[in-house]
Amino acid sequence: MATETTSVPVLTADDLLKDWQRNRRLTRRTIEAFPEDQLFQFSIGGMRPFAEMASELIGMTAPVVEGVSTGRWEEYKAAKPATKTELLRDWDAQTVELDAKFPQIPPARFSEVDKVFDQWEMPGIATIQYAIENEIHHRGQAYVYLRALGIEPPSFWKRD
Amino acid sequence: MATETTSVPVLTADDLLKDWQRNRRLTRRTIEAFPEDQLFQFSIGGMRPFAEMASELIGMTAPVVEGVSTGRWEEYKAAKPATKTELLRDWDAQTVELDAKFPQIPPARFSEVDKVFDQWEMPGIATIQYAIENEIHHRGQAYVYLRALGIEPPSFWKRD
Repeated sequence: MATETTSVPVLTADDLLKDWQRNRRLTRRTIEAFPEDQLFQFSIGGMRPFAEMASELIGMTAPVVEGVSTGRWEEYKAAKPATKTELLRDWDAQTVELDAKFPQIPPARFSEVDKVFDQWEMPGIATIQYAIENEIHHRGQAYVYLRALGIEPPSFWKRD
Repeated sequence: MATETTSVPVLTADDLLKDWQRNRRLTRRTIEAFPEDQLFQFSIGGMRPFAEMASELIGMTAPVVEGVSTGRWEEYKAAKPATKTELLRDWDAQTVELDAKFPQIPPARFSEVDKVFDQWEMPGIATIQYAIENEIHHRGQAYVYLRALGIEPPSFWKRD
């Protein structure tokens, strides 16, 4: 009988960072695919326009890594982007910040349970996974917006 | 200066299985939230109805784990579900199969590169991550379908 492999480590912090950045590159392409006006206005079923979802994602990137790293949970305070150029500029700034800050997370913090943004109690790793899953979730919604607008979304496979 | 933590293991095989099953519970609730007819018919922008996406997910669960485990990549062959009850029955069968098979994946297979379903070359862990991310992506799309139908989607937070 095969041995159960449940306790085998399958992902390192660096693997997770790389997966996040791969996902962020695809999300960036999704932002780019929207015509400027529709990025800020188009909506289905009363949902938020994708620019607002993307702003939420920006607020859950560097601030989440900072919180997991240090235990200081400070909301993202920059002005909300009003144009696609501003949104992409903020996105790119976070790409650099994420690469700089993520490798500095103290190892013990991944398993330490913390109160996240004064709301949810969870271990650091779960908070990071949540941020990534939330991004994939909203990007999937943006794909429907794009299709409804008659625009081909970026290839889900392409992450470079 | 803080030490870089890039090589710190942050997720075990069991953590990943649990995250997948948590996500699958939310996807199951999303299937349940659709009225039967809309599950198989409703579409936006020429996209597939959610029943078809869910069938794709079923084809990427046990078959992916089997392939990563053994190197045998066999397409899911069961008849496509024609009702919500059949779809949920197949979903639940995979839940049991996933719990049984995932812990049997030989540790070395997570990093071994394999040709997946005769199409893509990637390590076992990347294939599993892809399957999970693909599920989150399509479930996000189902949330837009539900909102467009005037139906409140299940809470994204609730994973029990």
